[in-house]
Parts: sequence; C-alpha cells; structure tokens
Amino acid sequence: MSHLGARISHIAPGRVHIVLPARPEVTQQNGFFHAGATSAIADSAGGYAAYTLFPENADVLTVEYKVNLLAPATGDHIEAVGTVIRSGRTLTVCQLEVFGVQGDGERKPVAHGQQTLIRLDRPAG
Amino acid sequence: MSHLGARISHIAPGRVHIVLPARPEVTQQNGFFHAGATSAIADSAGGYAAYTLFPENADVLTVEYKVNLLAPATGDHIEAVGTVIRSGRTLTVCQLEVFGVQGDGERKPVAHGQQTLIRLDRPAG
Amino acid sequence: MSHLGARISHIAPGRVHIVLPARPEVTQQNGFFHAGATSAIADSAGGYAAYTLFPENADVLTVEYKVNLLAPATGDHIEAVGTVIRSGRTLTVCQLEVFGVQGDGERKPVAHGQQTLIRLDRPAG
Amino acid sequence: MSHLGARISHIAPGRVHIVLPARPEVTQQNGFFHAGATSAIADSAGGYAAYTLFPENADVLTVEYKVNLLAPATGDHIEAVGTVIRSGRTLTVCQLEVFGVQGDGERKPVAHGQQTLIRLDRPAG
Repeated sequence: MSHLGARISHIAPGRVHIVLPARPEVTQQNGFFHAGATSAIADSAGGYAAYTLFPENADVLTVEYKVNLLAPATGDHIEAVGTVIRSGRTLTVCQLEVFGVQGDGERKPVAHGQQTLIRLDRPAG
Repeated sequence: MSHLGARISHIAPGRVHIVLPARPEVTQQNGFFHAGATSAIADSAGGYAAYTLFPENADVLTVEYKVNLLAPATGDHIEAVGTVIRSGRTLTVCQLEVFGVQGDGERKPVAHGQQTLIRLDRPAG
Repeated sequence: MSHLGARISHIAPGRVHIVLPARPEVTQQNGFFHAGATSAIADSAGGYAAYTLFPENADVLTVEYKVNLLAPATGDHIEAVGTVIRSGRTLTVCQLEVFGVQGDGERKPVAHGQQTLIRLDRPAG
Repeated sequence: MSHLGARISHIAPGRVHIVLPARPEVTQQNGFFHAGATSAIADSAGGYAAYTLFPENADVLTVEYKVNLLAPATGDHIEAVGTVIRSGRTLTVCQLEVFGVQGDGERKPVAHGQQTLIRLDRPAG
C-alpha cells in the first residue's frame, strides 16, 4: 500500500482503517480518486482486519471481493474501514467501507463491499 | 414469498425484516434451511427495504446480489434483515443479513450479503 | 433440489446442468420463475460441477455467490449450467448461467453468476 | 489507466483487452502484480467493453464488480479482457478475466469477475 501513499490510521481486533491522501498518482484530472485506488485500500483494510484475529505464523490472502461504488470518491483523503464479520478457522468474511473525507472532517460513503479471505498457515520455523 | 411461508415481521423506512419458519418445504433432512430459501428471503428483505423509500408508482427489481453463507442455517425460524445503504434516484444498494433464531431467542448470523436494485417508474394512471 | 422438482440433465467433469420445469410452487402469478428458485438451481449446478472434480470422501459447501438477474425468468423450464473455472485443493470457483427455455427450444439468458466453494474432506471410514 | 502504464491492446464490439506491463509501481517485491492494479485494469476493460456498444453522447460508470483472485498475478505483463454479457438500455453486465502472460506467450488465468455498469446520457450539445 505504501507505494500509493496509503497508511494504516487505526487498528483494533477485527477492524482496520486505512487512509489515502489525494495525490496526482491516485486521482483523476477532476480530483476523483481512481476506482482502482479505492478498491485497493478497501481490499487492504479487510486483509489487515482479518489478520488482527489470526495466530502467529499465519498469512492472509484475498479470495474474492465485491464492491459497490456509491458515489464519486472525492476529498482531501479517502478512508477505508475493514471489519471482520465472520472469522472462521480457514475463511474470514469482512465488510468493506470507503469514505471520502473533506478537510473539515465531513465524511461521505463512496464505496461499500464484502470480502472473503483465506488463512494460510506458514510451517513453523 | 408467501409460497414459502415467509412473512414480513418489521417495516421501517429503509429497513425490512422477513421471517421464515422451519417447514419441510424449506429445510433439508438435517433441519438446515435450504440455501435457496435463505437467499430468497434475503433478496426479498432488501427489495422491500428499497421499496419503503420509493415514491408511489415505482416498482423495484433486483439487479444483482452477492451473499456469503456464514454457517449452516438452523433454528425454529430464520430472519432476514434488509437495510438500505444507498438510495439513489435509479439504483439502491442494500445490506442483507440472515440470522438463525432458536425458540429461546438465540440469534446466530447465517448469511451476509449485498444487493443492487433498480427503480422502475410506472406510467402515471 | 428435488423438493423444487429440479433434476440434473447433464454431467461432465467440471460441468453440470440442472433443469427446473415451470410449476406453481416455483413461479409467480405472471409465470416468472421466482428469483429464489433461479438462484437455488444455479447454486446447486455450481456445487455439483465442483463435486465432479473432487476425490472420494470429499464434500462441498458454497462459500459465497454473486448473481446478476439479466431478464425475467420465463419458459417451460429454466436450465442452470455450472462450470468450474478454477479447481484448487481447498477452493473452487464456478461460473453460473441460467437460461429460460421455451417449448420450441429457444434459450434466453436470465441470470449470470460466479461462485466460490470449499472442499471438506470427510475422515476416512 | 495511463498513469499505471496500461494500454488498450484490442477493441471489438462488446470486448476490450487491456495490457499492463510489469513495473515497480504496480508490482510487489516478489514480482506479483498488486491486487489493486489487477482489479483496476479488469474494471477498465469492462467499462470500455460496455462503452463500445453505447450510442454517442453516452458515458459509462461502474455500479459494482466482484472479482475472484485465482492465482498470484505474475508475468511480463497482465492482460484484462472485458466482455459484455448483457447490454441493456440502462445497465450492462460484463465478464472480467485477467491473465498473467509470460515472455514466451504462456497465459495463466489470475482473476475472474463480473461487473455491472450504468449508462449515463449526456445532454445533447
């Protein structure tokens, strides 16, 4: 995510927020964030949220996600919130929300999604 | 829905609950509700929830939905909750949740989904 | 599926067809098949298609699916075609298609979807 | 898309291919393409495919998409193929496929998805 300029702004068990500031690399000429950037931070927020509930030596992979683009993604930054809905031994399901945030703090939903992830256990060292 | 034995148990603007009691027609031999029945009441709950925010003379059609089946759907009945996330002029997006409910009131999430619907305006009289 | 009157009409490795004849239990007053019935046979066709590629002693569960309802589902019967896109050790991805079929054989696409399934290995007897 | 280094490699009515060469901006340290880049070109390929069937003075917006990540996205480039499944007056449904392509031409599926788009008619000038 760091290549996009994104950073984690909040971590709690089963919930992670990621913030992406507006920059030329991730916005279009009209100032809208690219759908690819919006989806990328949503996907990452869900992945990290799943990861917070995993034991050590476990990795996470996105199996699939679905996202509705609700409104043009505008703002000083966008914020993705990934929340674990169901944490199973093998599969995790997350809810994905993305908000456009103005400098004055006004937040507007811009995307809403749902994601399935799989846990991969690394062989113990 | 009535052919399945389902009924609306709650209506509010942007939110509708539908209850489906366990019956041989909608459950398997092991007592699990069929995935088709689970999806059907989820889809209907979202459709009615969208409808609560429409003007008169408007109909609703499901464009698409996605549902994760989280756990076997068991209980005395299952309850679907459709909640409008985004109500636009043409398109509506809903969140879909289904719970398995025991006789003692214990509720367990069994499915979680997301749905897109389109409003169709009927020609005035 | 048999409770709906559905039956498998074709099986090949990685592909299964399921046919559901029009009956009052699965159609609305206008003759359209219920979305729940359409989704149910699509889900089942994908599940059986995944199953054709499994070893013995393995079961299949639907993790999630997404379906676009393309047109009203009408016809003497509807036919669902489940096709394996990716068969992994744990997860399988299927494409789901449903057609409305008239008595004269005319076929019209009525739904298109995508499904993720998980393989469950039963303990050897 | 050009900010990622992507380009359209094929256009036909209802079908568009987009190619994205491997570059540091779109790949991870292990050489895998970022999921965000994979999704972005899939989304764009579907959008352009829909657009090929539109009349003049019409724009296209992605309503939602769902994508399964089938395998790590590796190769000299990745290629997304967007294909129109259903072209309606208001809504279009596309199938999305992404392949990892090696220098010797070997192609491997890395993602498979489904997308809903809406047509927006611009007021005539």
